[in-house]
Amino acid sequence: MSDMLAPGAVIGILGGGQLGRMLSVAAARLGFTTHIYEPGANPPAGQVADRVTTAAYDDEAALRAFADSVDVITYEFENIPTEALDLLEAHRPIRPGREALRVSQDRLTEKSFLRDLGLNTAPFADVTDLDSLKAAIDAIGTPAILKTRRFGYDGKGQARLRAPEDAEAALADMAGAPAILEGFVEFSHEVSIIAARGLDGQVACFDPGENVHRDGILHTTTVPARLSPSQRTDAVLLAANILNALDYVGVMGVELFVTPQGLIVNEIAPRVHNSGHWTQNGCAVDQFEQHIRAVAGWPLGDGRRHVDVVMENLIGDDMERVPDLARQSDVAIHLYGKAEVKAGRKMGHFNRIIRDR
Amino acid sequence: MSDMLAPGAVIGILGGGQLGRMLSVAAARLGFTTHIYEPGANPPAGQVADRVTTAAYDDEAALRAFADSVDVITYEFENIPTEALDLLEAHRPIRPGREALRVSQDRLTEKSFLRDLGLNTAPFADVTDLDSLKAAIDAIGTPAILKTRRFGYDGKGQARLRAPEDAEAALADMAGAPAILEGFVEFSHEVSIIAARGLDGQVACFDPGENVHRDGILHTTTVPARLSPSQRTDAVLLAANILNALDYVGVMGVELFVTPQGLIVNEIAPRVHNSGHWTQNGCAVDQFEQHIRAVAGWPLGDGRRHVDVVMENLIGDDMERVPDLARQSDVAIHLYGKAEVKAGRKMGHFNRIIRDR
Repeated sequence: MSDMLAPGAVIGILGGGQLGRMLSVAAARLGFTTHIYEPGANPPAGQVADRVTTAAYDDEAALRAFADSVDVITYEFENIPTEALDLLEAHRPIRPGREALRVSQDRLTEKSFLRDLGLNTAPFADVTDLDSLKAAIDAIGTPAILKTRRFGYDGKGQARLRAPEDAEAALADMAGAPAILEGFVEFSHEVSIIAARGLDGQVACFDPGENVHRDGILHTTTVPARLSPSQRTDAVLLAANILNALDYVGVMGVELFVTPQGLIVNEIAPRVHNSGHWTQNGCAVDQFEQHIRAVAGWPLGDGRRHVDVVMENLIGDDMERVPDLARQSDVAIHLYGKAEVKAGRKMGHFNRIIRDR
Repeated sequence: MSDMLAPGAVIGILGGGQLGRMLSVAAARLGFTTHIYEPGANPPAGQVADRVTTAAYDDEAALRAFADSVDVITYEFENIPTEALDLLEAHRPIRPGREALRVSQDRLTEKSFLRDLGLNTAPFADVTDLDSLKAAIDAIGTPAILKTRRFGYDGKGQARLRAPEDAEAALADMAGAPAILEGFVEFSHEVSIIAARGLDGQVACFDPGENVHRDGILHTTTVPARLSPSQRTDAVLLAANILNALDYVGVMGVELFVTPQGLIVNEIAPRVHNSGHWTQNGCAVDQFEQHIRAVAGWPLGDGRRHVDVVMENLIGDDMERVPDLARQSDVAIHLYGKAEVKAGRKMGHFNRIIRDR
């Protein structure tokens, strides 16, 4: 493959959090060095990267110097300002590409995109004011959930409507931001599929994992997920459908609700995903290396799992569990090097290898 | 365990090669940052370390500043100058400790130490000049191998004697360095055991691996090794014997010859070891993390293997195999980020996961 970046090339990563950190380690494993671009000081990814630029996303000189110093640019989060992307893209390829970012940066665009692909989503409607919210409630019913169209993650920027009377309070929570009303879906459990697409269009999926959330944040992912063979096939096909439609290059996380009527797409994330961390201890090529392989034009790993895994996040004070976890067999601890423990902050995770099922 | 270094602490690593690199990644996984001390410019470990000092081992100011910046000091190679160790040890703990370095820096001291522990070694004799070499040949016979007592690795500083007449030429190869004559051992195969001992004296061993060398350099390690249950027990017991005798803290590689008369200790290395690289893809806690756990006063991982693995080194031009290896299932590639490919240079390795045996 002539498009393969050779070892020694530099991967630029926008964002210096734990995902950038684990991408950086994976890139090093393939002989690449990494350059992290992050506005915040002392980013976790910087501890394992060759180079760090601390600068804002509107610092044009810093962006330009960053782009000039790398061979390809990727990112650990989807909410990168458009102007920064425009400037960077003029210098170096950005992978995954702009279309994936455009779609996933806006919940309304994303849901419409998925529906237009023929995939099932929760019922949704555009909300710009109280009138459109009331119309949306009439169409979708309650309970429902109002979400900002942009910049939401881990349950932030969301308000639940138990009944139509909650409309005004929920709208106030949006603080004037454009929003989307989503109906609730009756589902038995949530799974996610971590899918990758190479520069040559090849698609590879890891085994779907089953997710449990607590307080709106991922708590555990268990692999294998409870899925019938046909559900498993559906999950792979719909993920491939999404990636192909976006001419996607890299790893994407696709969250799915499992219902008696089939799989419903909850959301997509154009990046490595918390629910794919189990691959670090379950596969020869983990999601981070898979992403780096894709953006570097390498062949993808095949995603085969050689052991069952339960991943559990360490949030805030869960860090106090680390000494006990370190004593347990078959537990692989992954900490993020964050200086300060805060409530609700993802501090690390661990993968428990399951031998006897 | 009150001796446990908390995440956020700094591990100092002497040596910036591939072992320091993989130690650095393992330390980051436990939330530590690393500071590499290395005389050579642009060390591979520096690409994934928080901090690098480029300075010689006789630069007292640099050594002092390095020691002051870290919480504990470890190393990736055993031939660190004594004066540097003296200075560093006055500031911070060095783990594994000085006794292990004293013993392993000198082949004669090492062999004597092992014999005094009641372990089997190849026959050996001190060689200081032609007379003592001739006496050694009389006692040990030929074929035999003459080795410098210090600074030998990967077959360097060695000369074979096929017959007594080779004595003078072999001695000339030593270039005046103190040497040791070792007799050949009839063995069926070589195995190595990667053993660890914690700050609390706990010992844990990984499963022994079977080694094949080419041109004096490790070629492959296969796990599990061909060993009877009693040989396996012997290997663990003798490794524990060595570690306990040295009040050792950290990971040690112990190379063993398998003979009909039992196991013979070939050599010990007071550090992580090339023959332990398979643990990266076979165990929840690999040898690098195991070493960091020990030097940081953490509980050891138990070393259990969840899958069979064959590790193969990528030497020099083997780098050309990488694109093909990247296409193969169940192959985990680990490259070292070395800028220049040289004949005989270790550029990386790969672990092949074996499912059906």
